Amino acid sequence: MEQLKNKIMHEGKVLSDTVLKVDSFLNHQIDPELMQEIGKEFAERFRTSNITKILSIESSGIAPAVMAGLYLGVPVIFARKRKSLTLTDRLYSSSVYSFTKKETNEISVSKDFLVKEDVVLLIDDFLANGQAVHGLVNIIEQAEAQLAGVGIVIEKGFQSGGTEIRDKGIRVESLAIVRSLENGEVIFQEEEGNAK
Amino acid sequence: MEQLKNKIMHEGKVLSDTVLKVDSFLNHQIDPELMQEIGKEFAERFRTSNITKILSIESSGIAPAVMAGLYLGVPVIFARKRKSLTLTDRLYSSSVYSFTKKETNEISVSKDFLVKEDVVLLIDDFLANGQAVHGLVNIIEQAEAQLAGVGIVIEKGFQSGGTEIRDKGIRVESLAIVRSLENGEVIFQEEEGNAK
Repeated sequence: MEQLKNKIMHEGKVLSDTVLKVDSFLNHQIDPELMQEIGKEFAERFRTSNITKILSIESSGIAPAVMAGLYLGVPVIFARKRKSLTLTDRLYSSSVYSFTKKETNEISVSKDFLVKEDVVLLIDDFLANGQAVHGLVNIIEQAEAQLAGVGIVIEKGFQSGGTEIRDKGIRVESLAIVRSLENGEVIFQEEEGNAK
Repeated sequence: MEQLKNKIMHEGKVLSDTVLKVDSFLNHQIDPELMQEIGKEFAERFRTSNITKILSIESSGIAPAVMAGLYLGVPVIFARKRKSLTLTDRLYSSSVYSFTKKETNEISVSKDFLVKEDVVLLIDDFLANGQAVHGLVNIIEQAEAQLAGVGIVIEKGFQSGGTEIRDKGIRVESLAIVRSLENGEVIFQEEEGNAK
């Protein structure tokens, strides 16, 4: 997605060979018009998949997920990273390790909102080691729902998450795939679209 | 906002005299079309305030804030509740006690994205005791930015936050104000608009 890649080139900050900071439009400050275009793009790519629900994870996944939900006309659920007192005990839960934050979070989704008739699109801001996606896929399996695919805003192609998930036969659509951050420079790889 | 009140009447669950659960469209599952209408409504109410930035807080504030940002044409920042390793030390921070979760969070906003030239609209999902708004107002004061007002999706009118904030001369626009949850019933109060 050219608009996204241009934004990354102009505003992304390469902090190391593995860390790309996009706090100016995705992770902390959010560009709503870019999110709208991202939502339209996800909706376009999964238009024929009969999606009934989008599943994302707090917090940075919410903005792109809600925009995709708007253009697909389906509700969005965001998995919570800690159990809230106002959530009941009717929960699907899974553990997710964050390499960025060096901690394990329990993620939870209410059984009220994910049922076995659902066809689910997962959306998240980043795909690196794939821990969040694995946790969300596990929750979909617990609900016996169908996984239609995974929509990612920025994939770090040099980390193993994307390959592992595609190797499981899961469709992954990443709007920008970063091949390398070496020497402080962002190099994209050509979009693969549906690698499976 | 009638559409929102109807949604609360049909899907909101009164768990006690003080707890209203709206997990089916705002706090856990999100209704993107309702968020779009909420965003348009906030934009309409603050259209003449020359807003340059929206400030919200993770996680449930993000969806309405991004939609408001889309229709006002301004960026959205969401305050983070814990310091992330990829955020630098150039932060405005404030402490916020959550009565729901019975814990204090440090909330933070990068100094890169909030400057003294900004005219800021605060947006959050709920206003009850007002702790989150006080924390966000404190961050705006640290940045020496101008506060244009506060946009709230659901205000609990029977708790003190709204009165305290309006008494400080701050404009508060709540799209639905709940006067009472007694006897398991949601009673709205008429919208006051700008009470100050």
